[in-house]
Amino acid sequence: MAGALAADTLDVKLDENGTSFLEMMGRAMAGALAADTLDVKLDENGTSFLEAANAVGYGGESHQAILDATRTPKGSVDYFVELHIEQGPLLEQERKDIGVVTAIAAPAALEVHFYGDGGHAGAQLMPLRNDAGLAGAELAIAVEAHTLATGAEDTVGTTGIFEVSPNAVNSVPREARLGIDVRDIDGQRRDTVVQSILDSAAAIAVKRKVKVTTNLINQDPPASCDSRIQGAIAAAAQQLGLSTKHMVSRAYHDSLFMARVAPTGMIFIPCREGWSHRPDEFASEKDIGNGVGVLALTMAELSEGSWGDGKSRDEL
Amino acid sequence: MAGALAADTLDVKLDENGTSFLEMMGRAMAGALAADTLDVKLDENGTSFLEAANAVGYGGESHQAILDATRTPKGSVDYFVELHIEQGPLLEQERKDIGVVTAIAAPAALEVHFYGDGGHAGAQLMPLRNDAGLAGAELAIAVEAHTLATGAEDTVGTTGIFEVSPNAVNSVPREARLGIDVRDIDGQRRDTVVQSILDSAAAIAVKRKVKVTTNLINQDPPASCDSRIQGAIAAAAQQLGLSTKHMVSRAYHDSLFMARVAPTGMIFIPCREGWSHRPDEFASEKDIGNGVGVLALTMAELSEGSWGDGKSRDEL
Repeated sequence: MAGALAADTLDVKLDENGTSFLEMMGRAMAGALAADTLDVKLDENGTSFLEAANAVGYGGESHQAILDATRTPKGSVDYFVELHIEQGPLLEQERKDIGVVTAIAAPAALEVHFYGDGGHAGAQLMPLRNDAGLAGAELAIAVEAHTLATGAEDTVGTTGIFEVSPNAVNSVPREARLGIDVRDIDGQRRDTVVQSILDSAAAIAVKRKVKVTTNLINQDPPASCDSRIQGAIAAAAQQLGLSTKHMVSRAYHDSLFMARVAPTGMIFIPCREGWSHRPDEFASEKDIGNGVGVLALTMAELSEGSWGDGKSRDEL
Repeated sequence: MAGALAADTLDVKLDENGTSFLEMMGRAMAGALAADTLDVKLDENGTSFLEAANAVGYGGESHQAILDATRTPKGSVDYFVELHIEQGPLLEQERKDIGVVTAIAAPAALEVHFYGDGGHAGAQLMPLRNDAGLAGAELAIAVEAHTLATGAEDTVGTTGIFEVSPNAVNSVPREARLGIDVRDIDGQRRDTVVQSILDSAAAIAVKRKVKVTTNLINQDPPASCDSRIQGAIAAAAQQLGLSTKHMVSRAYHDSLFMARVAPTGMIFIPCREGWSHRPDEFASEKDIGNGVGVLALTMAELSEGSWGDGKSRDEL
């Protein structure tokens, strides 16, 4: 959930992180999305973003026009505050009610594609092979090695997607496709890991005698959360009798992008076992209620003096 | 293509290697197929083998009954000869017309499944992970290592299937499924490699803190080709003015199983670049014609004395 306060009205927009076309609306709103990224996307019905936008009344002529019309210009929003589950186990483990987020880790994602000749698993002798699947396996191991090599707890690297083709037991893989995710609270350190992975992909391709293509899907800088917002969150929690923990957000959110155009902050609530992006992801009604309460009081605190109808904060 | 001669009639059955239910009809005909293997198979329309067999008039009550009724008892067939493309590059490279197969390599296939907890790629720190995909990657590398460790050219090992779940870039793999193919002309050496792979799967599971299940799909002994059949093939080729090469079949065929119930032999023809199990698999009309000619003369030679209508071999 995200709340955005316009310069002189209380204007709350509720939004999900992602849509059929964008993984982060905030990326588009903050002007960090290139129109040609939308040009190649179709939803599950084969509809383009332009068609979908026009169908709901945006009336734009092109993706660039829609992006220009919907962008949130720097200065047009005083504060951007986002409420989210932690997606990690720390609040639950430490029995803290509210996370006051200090910074959002810098995410990057890349796709690597290896291409060999394939062949019959029984007939193709080992010295003649250029097995794309084994190239992929070596790279997945290298992703982990480069991640651990920073020596920093905050560096995480994952080969989340791994597919081989033709994917038949009696067929030497002729293609392998990897989707790799790298994040760190330190953008430069994260970039070093990404470069090491790209270097490994090239070296493995030579060793395995396969072709390789790489595609950097995104490589975003980290974001710091505004200190006034952090203070407002902490005060709101205290007012509601809730305990707090100052912490980093390891997952990224709309806030990562909105931080480029407005002072931004995040509120975390605990989620069971820290699980996320899996069907048993869960947050309790009590924790959700706590989060909403802190969000409301935080926005009231930040909007002090901008309250349209004269009500005081305490009357909310 | 396979030709089977019954004890006193010329009876040629044309058959494909595989069907919707069986990868090798020969496995069933030779009595090497367990009924419970059929019990769990459905074709792409959800039809069971029993339903499909009854629909075309087999009229069996159960899978076991059908297998019993269609098995080829040892002694009921004098010779089993199979014509096939080489599925390798040697005949083409050496400019030989016909391969006289001396033995068929022993195939084995196994499935390995790793199970971890998964997690969010950004939020789950490295020390807390039990990444099933990395367990799979390590095992794929180990399959190659154990294969090469025999030091024998004839040993081949392949991780043909590699799938992770949920297979999303921002999700640590919680499951990995591998399909592994191991073959060798020496059955015992092949079994050593299979055991090493199983041992590695267990060791990797401990190291990676994942669960593992393994399933041996098949592990068949090699087969030697009957020397009289080899002689007949060579003579047939000579009669047609074709060059020959004595060679091993690295792929397996119905012949691997028929060799358990009848003297068996195989005829190879060249295929382009040795490619097989890929869309550009190709054999020329000339080579196919050569193969058919050798097959016919071979069967005539073997059936000498059994020729129903009194024609001599030369009159074919």
